[in-house]
Order: sequence, then C-alpha cells, then structure tokens
Amino acid sequence: MKNQKDFVKSVTAMDDDFAQWYTDIVTKADLVDYSSVRGSMIIRPYGYALWENIKNELDRRIKETGHENVYMPLFIPESLLQKEKDHIEGFAPEVAFVTHGGSEELTERLVVRPTSEVLFCEHYKDIIHSYRDLPKLYNQWANVVRWEKTTRPFLRTLEFLWQEGHTCHATDEDAHEETTRMLEVYARVCEDLLAIPVVKGQKTEKEKFAGAKFTYTIESLMHDGKALQTATSHHLGTGFAKAFGIQYLDKDGNQQYVHQTSWGFTTRVIGALIMVHGDDRGLKIPPKVAPTQVMIVPIAQHKEGVLDFAYDLKESLSKLVRIDIDASDKKPGWKFNEYEMKGIPVRLEVGPKDIEKNQVVLVRRDTGEKVFVSMDKLEETLLALLEEIQYSMLDTARKAREDKTSTTNSFEEFKELINQKPGFIKAMWCGKLECEEKIKEVTGATSRCIPFEQESISNECVCCGNEAQKLVYWAKSY
Amino acid sequence: MKNQKDFVKSVTAMDDDFAQWYTDIVTKADLVDYSSVRGSMIIRPYGYALWENIKNELDRRIKETGHENVYMPLFIPESLLQKEKDHIEGFAPEVAFVTHGGSEELTERLVVRPTSEVLFCEHYKDIIHSYRDLPKLYNQWANVVRWEKTTRPFLRTLEFLWQEGHTCHATDEDAHEETTRMLEVYARVCEDLLAIPVVKGQKTEKEKFAGAKFTYTIESLMHDGKALQTATSHHLGTGFAKAFGIQYLDKDGNQQYVHQTSWGFTTRVIGALIMVHGDDRGLKIPPKVAPTQVMIVPIAQHKEGVLDFAYDLKESLSKLVRIDIDASDKKPGWKFNEYEMKGIPVRLEVGPKDIEKNQVVLVRRDTGEKVFVSMDKLEETLLALLEEIQYSMLDTARKAREDKTSTTNSFEEFKELINQKPGFIKAMWCGKLECEEKIKEVTGATSRCIPFEQESISNECVCCGNEAQKLVYWAKSY
Repeated sequence: MKNQKDFVKSVTAMDDDFAQWYTDIVTKADLVDYSSVRGSMIIRPYGYALWENIKNELDRRIKETGHENVYMPLFIPESLLQKEKDHIEGFAPEVAFVTHGGSEELTERLVVRPTSEVLFCEHYKDIIHSYRDLPKLYNQWANVVRWEKTTRPFLRTLEFLWQEGHTCHATDEDAHEETTRMLEVYARVCEDLLAIPVVKGQKTEKEKFAGAKFTYTIESLMHDGKALQTATSHHLGTGFAKAFGIQYLDKDGNQQYVHQTSWGFTTRVIGALIMVHGDDRGLKIPPKVAPTQVMIVPIAQHKEGVLDFAYDLKESLSKLVRIDIDASDKKPGWKFNEYEMKGIPVRLEVGPKDIEKNQVVLVRRDTGEKVFVSMDKLEETLLALLEEIQYSMLDTARKAREDKTSTTNSFEEFKELINQKPGFIKAMWCGKLECEEKIKEVTGATSRCIPFEQESISNECVCCGNEAQKLVYWAKSY
Repeated sequence: MKNQKDFVKSVTAMDDDFAQWYTDIVTKADLVDYSSVRGSMIIRPYGYALWENIKNELDRRIKETGHENVYMPLFIPESLLQKEKDHIEGFAPEVAFVTHGGSEELTERLVVRPTSEVLFCEHYKDIIHSYRDLPKLYNQWANVVRWEKTTRPFLRTLEFLWQEGHTCHATDEDAHEETTRMLEVYARVCEDLLAIPVVKGQKTEKEKFAGAKFTYTIESLMHDGKALQTATSHHLGTGFAKAFGIQYLDKDGNQQYVHQTSWGFTTRVIGALIMVHGDDRGLKIPPKVAPTQVMIVPIAQHKEGVLDFAYDLKESLSKLVRIDIDASDKKPGWKFNEYEMKGIPVRLEVGPKDIEKNQVVLVRRDTGEKVFVSMDKLEETLLALLEEIQYSMLDTARKAREDKTSTTNSFEEFKELINQKPGFIKAMWCGKLECEEKIKEVTGATSRCIPFEQESISNECVCCGNEAQKLVYWAKSY
C-alpha cells in the first residue's frame, strides 16, 4: 500500500466498493499512513488528536467511576500466559514471541502482550490479602499485539492502542455490577460522544472472551450493513483467581477467591466512527470529539480587511470552540473539499460582502446546510449548531441502523435477508452451539449478541425450530 | 525481589546503603512493584499518577511549542534499523528481537523499538516534498525496550515510558534552534515542576547519541553525589536524511536534505526526583506534581464532630488543591509515617481542640515545620505554603548540588575528590578522547557535559596538561 498515495482527493464511491472507500478515506483524511512494518499503521497527527479526544474523555469517566491507572510490562513470560487454560488456548495462535535479547538467546520465550490479564493476576496475588483490600479497580492505557493475517487500519492491526480495565471484587454480584457499569460507560461514550448507536447485550458461549464466565458487548452497525464489536466487558468469575491463587481473608476469617472483571476499548472505535458517519465526500466527525470543530475559510482574502476580520474571529471564538483558519493561498473550493474530507463539523466562510453585512456563513458538514448569521448572534448560534449536529448525527445513525435491522422467524428468509438487505437480523435461538454454527456456515452471519432488551418474536429457534431461549442479533461482521 | 515485601515501613538509612534505601523507597512508597518479567517494573497507581502529572504538563508544553502527537509502530524490521550505520552500531547490543508470530517463523526479524528515529525517517520521506512542508514537528508518547543486563526501577529497566520528539527543518540553524528550545523545555520542567536543578550542556563526541551531529543534555546530581543524565536533545544534522533520502524542493527549485532533531524525556526522571529530594523517612514530592498535595489526618476522630469537620474541609479545599483524607481506623502516628513515606507535601491535622479554637495544623513534609492556622486564613495560607515548599525544595536541592560540586586543576586532587567528596567535578579538558578515556579508567568518572556556561579555570587539561579547550562537568553516574 506504501506508494499508493496520490494527492488527488477523489474517493471511491462507498456503494461501488466499500472496502476501497474506507482505505481511501483513512489515508486521504490524513488519519493514518502505512509503513514497512506489515499490518501496522502510523497514526498521523489528525488521527491521533481524534484518539486523544476520545481517550481523555474515556479516561475521565474511568477515573470518575473509581478506577486508578497503572502500567504493566509489555512482555509476558510464556509460562505465565499458560497458567489459565482457556485463556492461552484462545490467544496462542495470535501472539508474537521475543526469543533474543541483545546477543543472547532467551531461556524462556517472551510473549508481547495480546492482553494483560495474567500480569494483573500475578500482581493482585501479591497485593490482595484481606477484604479491606477490595475492590481493586485498575486500568491501563497501552499498546497490544495480535498476530493477524489480514489487517486494515483501525479495524484489525498487528498492534493497536487501547485501555484495559482489570478489577477484583469480594463477591460475584460486585463483579457482575462492575461488568455492567463499564459496559454502560462504553455505551455512553459511543452514543453521547461518538454519536454511534449501540446494541447492548451478552456474547454467546462461543463468542465470549477466552477465560471469561461471560462477556458483555456493545455492537454497532456500519454503513455497509456489517456489524462491529465496539467494546467488551468481561465477568471473569473465579477462573483466573483459582489459576493464580488470588485469595483474601473475609470478615469471618475464611480464605475466599476474588471475583474478577476485565474490559477494553480500542482505537478500533475510530474505524466505527468512519464507517457509521462517513460519506463519499469524506469523514464526518461529531463535534464533541472533533480535533477542529470549526474551520474558517476566508473568501476573497486578498481584499482589504478580510484576513484581519477572519483572524479576529478565530481569536475571539477560540475561547468557545476548537477553531482554526486556513489562510493559505489555495482556492476556497479546494479548502472546502479538504475540510469536508476531514469531517470538520462546521465551515465558517467570511468575505467582503459578509463583512459589509456584518454576518458570516456557517456550513454544516453533516447535512450541507448553509446559514447566514449576523455577528451579534454568532456565538450562541455556533454553540447551538454544534449541539444540533451532535444530536442529529446520532439520530441519523439510529435511523440508518433501524433501516438495516430486520426481524424474521424463517431460516429461508434469514438466508435471503443477509444478502439482499445486509444488516442486523433479529431472530430467536434455541441456545445450542450446533444451530449457531450452522447459521454461520450457511449464511456467514455470526451471533453478535443476546440483547439485554429481549423481545419474544416467536417460540421457535429460527434454525432448528425447537424451543427458543433467546432473541439474538445476527449479522456479518468486521 | 518478588517476595521481599514486608509491610513494616522501616527503611535502610540512605547514608548506610544508598542503593538499598532507593529500593526500599520505591516499593514502600507504593511507586512500583516487581513482576516475574526480568528487569521490568509494574508502575503502581501512586507512581503512575505522578507520571501522569509530569506527562500532562510536558505534553502541554510540547504542544505549546508547536508540536503534534503521532503514533508509530512498536516493531521495526531489522533491515530498516540498519539503514543509518552509527545508529545501528549504538543500539544493536541492546535490542529485543521478535522472531515468531503466531505459529510462523518470520522471514525477517522485527526489533522491538529502542527508539523510533528510523520509523519517523521512513514516514518523513513519504510526506515531505517541498519547503512548504517544513518544519515537521512531531512527538510520540510510547514504551521502548532496551535489553539491559542490570536493572533498577525507573533508572534502568528493560522497558520504559517516554516521549520522543522527531523534527525536520529546512536549515541547520532551524534544527539547532529546535534542539536548544526543547532542551530548555526539559530544563524548565525539571526545575520549575520537579524542583530538580540541572546543568545544561553538550555531550562529548564519545557520549553523544548514536547517529547525532551533537547531543545536548541536562544533568542533575543525586544525594549520593552521582550524576544522572535527565534528558537529552539531539541535533541529527543530515545523516539520517541522507541515509533515508528525505529531501525537499527549496524555493529556488533545488533538492535539499532536511536537517533533523530528536529529543526524549523518560520515566527515569522519577528516579531523579526520588534521589534528589528523598530522605530516611521517604519521598518528598514537589507540590506541583504531587498526586495528593494535602492529606487530612483527623485527630481523635471518634469524638463528635471531628470527621464531619474534616470532610467539610476536604470538600471546600478540593476546589483549590489536590486533597485527600484518611479516615481509616489506623492510629494517627501510623498515618503520619505513611504519608511522609509517600512524600505528600502537606499534612493537615485537625482534632477536637483545633475545632474549638477554629484552627487546623499544617505540617510541611520538606522541613517538618508545623504551623497553626486559623480557619479564616486557611485558604490563602495553604496556597502560599505550597508555593513556598515548591520554591524551597528547588533551593535546597541547589544548595546540596553546590555543596557537592568541586573545582580542580590537578589530576591528583581529582582522584581524591571523586571518592572523598562525590559529586560534580569541574575541570578543564583538552578535547581529546584519550584523556576522556583515561579519566574514566583511573577515576570512574565520565564527562557529564560541556556546560553552556563556560568558565576558564585554567589553560591546561586536568589530565594531560596540554592546552585546554573546554570546562567539563565530570562525575560518576547512573
């Protein structure tokens, strides 16, 4: 991919080739670049500023819910990773091994962390002794590595950035509550910040995290009708605690195993943001996380007073919003394209005629709508507009998801829908692995989640016709 | 080190065994813990909160000076690292190699980044075309790995956290200016934030960064008289640009190589903070970076009204300072020891008699001084006290450094001083590698830097007696 860069800003139409559209957008909007490191990406300043905005807000909410940040080692001795059986089985195929350090061959291979449960467990065994030490609510921001064959920027890369929370509790209920709490934090960040609507639910046994008692997930739907697992929160039960011997003395003087959770949120969410909101002109970034919320484009800037006026505007508005100005000698039309590609929520145009009329022009990226605003109303109008855009983007995404969500009680119809109307399919399931596997084999759709909000569509499993246990969201997925 | 933890808070006296004192402090103040990963450390919540405060402020200053954050891959193909000859020679002995991913053996080994010059260079070659693209001012926050044999928390670990700035400029002067600017940013963070006085200067050819034209450094002096290289800023010249072909078209239409810099600041600085300010009772953290600036310890808290009063205090003061309260049932004396160990700048005591007198007691960690403050003057007194502590810690550290700094013109005296009065030795140098090596061999001291502020102590090199070129700071070092 290295030399594919042309600086023409034309983009493959999303309905012609969605995968190519995605690749065009991530590079042309300057989010990422490729390097000679297979499957890894360079996150460029614009992409990283976006990640920082998401990260800072999520970090604030993680701290607000009582968690503390720590930092664990990058390397895990192979034997340590093997302590919890299901866990190693799940991760073994995708880990990278360090075998040499300096000039020496290591006596034990080191795994580059794919996730850090075992390191936290080893530490927890050391520092937890009594019920007074509970709960322990830790989080870390880190890079992790998973040896993926096929990679795509943000969605699936050899290395990605994330936070991983790891907690210990006295009781199963406390751990359950934490699992729910953190899923809710993730859902709020997605919906309120990123304007990405999510379905909250539980993963099936087949799809749960390696080593977990159960996994909660938020699932979102992309423009092409494929689902994306956007974040997960795991109730680990006492499996790891038993494997690592993490015990505490309870109030009655008895040794008890701790109950654990873990939960993660990654740079992958930027992929979701692109595929939920973007269009053929480029990104659309919700105002709350936009690195630049308003871009000033001066019109006829060579005319006297225009640039002064524009810079004064930038100066005075910068107390209210994240605002920038493009006073380069490129043509306005070129600038319009550039900032539409970058998904900046509002373009502010101002030229000699506007100055004469004591007004500016605001153009919404999400709808293309254009409004003339008199200077004395600019501040309040701009703030209201950013709020309106934020709300409206979530609303639009919700409607798009509803349009792409079907309900069926027939396997024949299921098979038709999955290709003719890609999206979520809501259908009943008997709870058996065979049916889940058959559905995947025949249709390519996987169980995305058993939603918390259950409906009874029918009493029969859509696959085998036997008694149905649960409503499930099915979809093809990233 | 894994099982050495006793929860008794006694600490080896620093003058008995400084290395053991250091190890005691980092673990007993809950900054770090050990894991089964050789040479790596777990940064615990208290240590990480301290790092976050330093990081956030440094990040702010890096952005304020026009830099943008990016993120580069963790892995570097071995052939890419070999492109700049001096660079690979310097780093080869201390890199970790990934040789296997999942079940496959890699066709080319991947290096876990020890530093990221080559990745930035590859990217810069891609995105720099014209003088309009310059300067490029990038920074990244990341973990790096260096295969060290002997490790100590913060000071020298297999993996550490840092920021690394990498910039490209049109001219040598611009790059030189940047090198100076970022060293100054580092010096200001050390002195104004961490209360660590530094000597600014240039490294000798022998001690400069592998691949650099020259290296600027800030050096600080620890309690035991050893120096610590606290941060460095490198002028890379055009060496990397030529190896990687990073060229731009200048205004006259000629191809020119860019002039580069790189500069880094690491978690090592926490080691400096411990060893500059700490004493036999534990850490002393300067107020500006202290995770908790004020700790409230209620006295006779079982008496009516004490806890309510203390919590109200916390509530009202939390708008002004980072404040916490310990209302656990531990004895006050135990709490005093605990928060002295953690280096919290101010302890606020309040008991029934204080409430009666409408006052509280403030106790400084740095001097042990105790003042009674009436409630109506509390806010202003507390803020002034924190400022006074910040200033006074820098002043104390400066005096300690001056006491440990000697000047000599005789090699015989140099040899005596280095053992009898450990610290900086200021002595003249002829500029020849032979003398630098001989001084190291005979005395164990290395050249720390050629200070920007030169003095002429003598016209003769302290080692060979030939004509002196420069004044140099010499010391044994970490």
